[in-house]
Amino acid sequence: MHELDVKQVAALLKEQDRILILTHMSPDGDTLGSAFALHRALLQLGKQVKAVCGDTIPEKYAYMMRDLAVGDFEPQFVVAVDVADKKLLGDTYEAQYGDKVDLCIDHHRSNTGYAKNLCLEECAATCEIIFAVLEALNVKFDAAMADCLYTGLSTDTGCFRYANVTPRTHKIAAELLEYGAEAGEINRVMFETRTKEYIRLQVMALENIEMYAQDKCAFVLLSQAMFKESGCSEADCDGISSVPRKIEGVLAGVTVREKSDGSYKVSLRTHAPVDASEICKKMGGGGHARAAGCTLDGAHYEAEKEKLIKLIEAEINAI
Amino acid sequence: MHELDVKQVAALLKEQDRILILTHMSPDGDTLGSAFALHRALLQLGKQVKAVCGDTIPEKYAYMMRDLAVGDFEPQFVVAVDVADKKLLGDTYEAQYGDKVDLCIDHHRSNTGYAKNLCLEECAATCEIIFAVLEALNVKFDAAMADCLYTGLSTDTGCFRYANVTPRTHKIAAELLEYGAEAGEINRVMFETRTKEYIRLQVMALENIEMYAQDKCAFVLLSQAMFKESGCSEADCDGISSVPRKIEGVLAGVTVREKSDGSYKVSLRTHAPVDASEICKKMGGGGHARAAGCTLDGAHYEAEKEKLIKLIEAEINAI
Repeated sequence: MHELDVKQVAALLKEQDRILILTHMSPDGDTLGSAFALHRALLQLGKQVKAVCGDTIPEKYAYMMRDLAVGDFEPQFVVAVDVADKKLLGDTYEAQYGDKVDLCIDHHRSNTGYAKNLCLEECAATCEIIFAVLEALNVKFDAAMADCLYTGLSTDTGCFRYANVTPRTHKIAAELLEYGAEAGEINRVMFETRTKEYIRLQVMALENIEMYAQDKCAFVLLSQAMFKESGCSEADCDGISSVPRKIEGVLAGVTVREKSDGSYKVSLRTHAPVDASEICKKMGGGGHARAAGCTLDGAHYEAEKEKLIKLIEAEINAI
Repeated sequence: MHELDVKQVAALLKEQDRILILTHMSPDGDTLGSAFALHRALLQLGKQVKAVCGDTIPEKYAYMMRDLAVGDFEPQFVVAVDVADKKLLGDTYEAQYGDKVDLCIDHHRSNTGYAKNLCLEECAATCEIIFAVLEALNVKFDAAMADCLYTGLSTDTGCFRYANVTPRTHKIAAELLEYGAEAGEINRVMFETRTKEYIRLQVMALENIEMYAQDKCAFVLLSQAMFKESGCSEADCDGISSVPRKIEGVLAGVTVREKSDGSYKVSLRTHAPVDASEICKKMGGGGHARAAGCTLDGAHYEAEKEKLIKLIEAEINAI
């Protein structure tokens, strides 16, 4: 589905100045790593550039941007990175730039094609594509860029754990370590640091797992009451999404997070051959084959939950 | 501390026949991956070879050896892989071969030098060294060898998560994927599959964490009663060792497993600069800088536990 290739994207970026980089809501390591690696590369090429996010950026990612000034200029060229749908820019940026994105660099199969794009599904992370773009731009890689790109590679692959990893993913990782990426420290922060509040929430979640589809679907609800009781913030609970799929025999792990606005955010993780992206698409969401998401209407939570479970059961029964 | 280099080891192996490969007790992915990759390589070279372990090999590793016949011959040459100390061969093999190991291939700093060896501490896994030996032997890598070697790389690095990973680790991983290693499936089995019994045990463990050294040391005890109540077997509880170190602010995570013989097996995981190997050495054990182990005498458990905690506190206070 990509319309531009890496060389064309590099050529296009070289021509531009006053570049705004957009990331997706609920920012993760890949959208931020892509944005700030590209930010640093464009700075090196003498461009004015800024990167923004519609959401608050969690403190754990601060190392990517700590030394960067936020440019004050009227954007001339708008790039979205790792953003599959303009809705994911968040209300403010969608209203302001949703129809004015000049270039989208992404790896989601569910990309809606809202802008001219370089979308490579075979890449485990958008950061893999950014790495290739930076090479094509003849940028000199530094340790800060390497940290950004490594973060995207590592977080979008469960630290090289998932089946989306290719030989190229590892080769890029090797190069990023050589450029000085602090991989051990990044992984410690991303994967090896859990607050006591998180652990309390995890215990509550594990004590209340529901099983469906002859124990092939595990379902966890993180309610507002549980956030309150554990003291864990919604921004800090990401890791729990990977837990239900880990249970032996489970092919579909569902984690549902009750948001403070009353809606419910679903994170669906599957094992082959269950297609998470297809299921979430039917619920108005999207994502990857093994990790996808959608939102449930809080006013009809039970009905929506039932619909989701039925879709999952149908997929599992069709195997 | 290595006495032989990779070329010398390859030359030595080429000369030999009727080769016995020894692995360590409580076998892990690295000792087994090393053993069965070497086993397959030596078979390809037309040698008689067998690999053994003093302990039962957990079912999850069965894919490494499923198609291999166990050779029936009197060994002429004995190789130990990933075995830092002859005591780790287990009583039977220590008695039979402890003083007759012709070659030890290992990466533990705590290697006691009980045999002529190739011991490279800078390697994240013994499988990295075996990879180099196989290259020097001009072996044609196949998918089964790649699976074995990938397993060692992945399991000894927490799936490329820890600070022991080097660019070379990733480069070898890339090659192993190209040779056909089923990385996604191996990691699913090693890291993404938890029994319900394991999850019950984990919940119990997390509910009973003790904190020491101004919350910089987290301590978890897995008692025989907890194994019984959860239904989780001792062989299946390995993953819990990585949990206490994950708590925010913790520099030393201790997991103590009560064995059925009344002794207590300690797994100590640390963050820099706390040296797990030094602490465990003082308790009669050993290992790596960030992951080491020792045993506590069950008859004096409380006193031994106090001694261990005091050693950890001293290390932390000295930072």
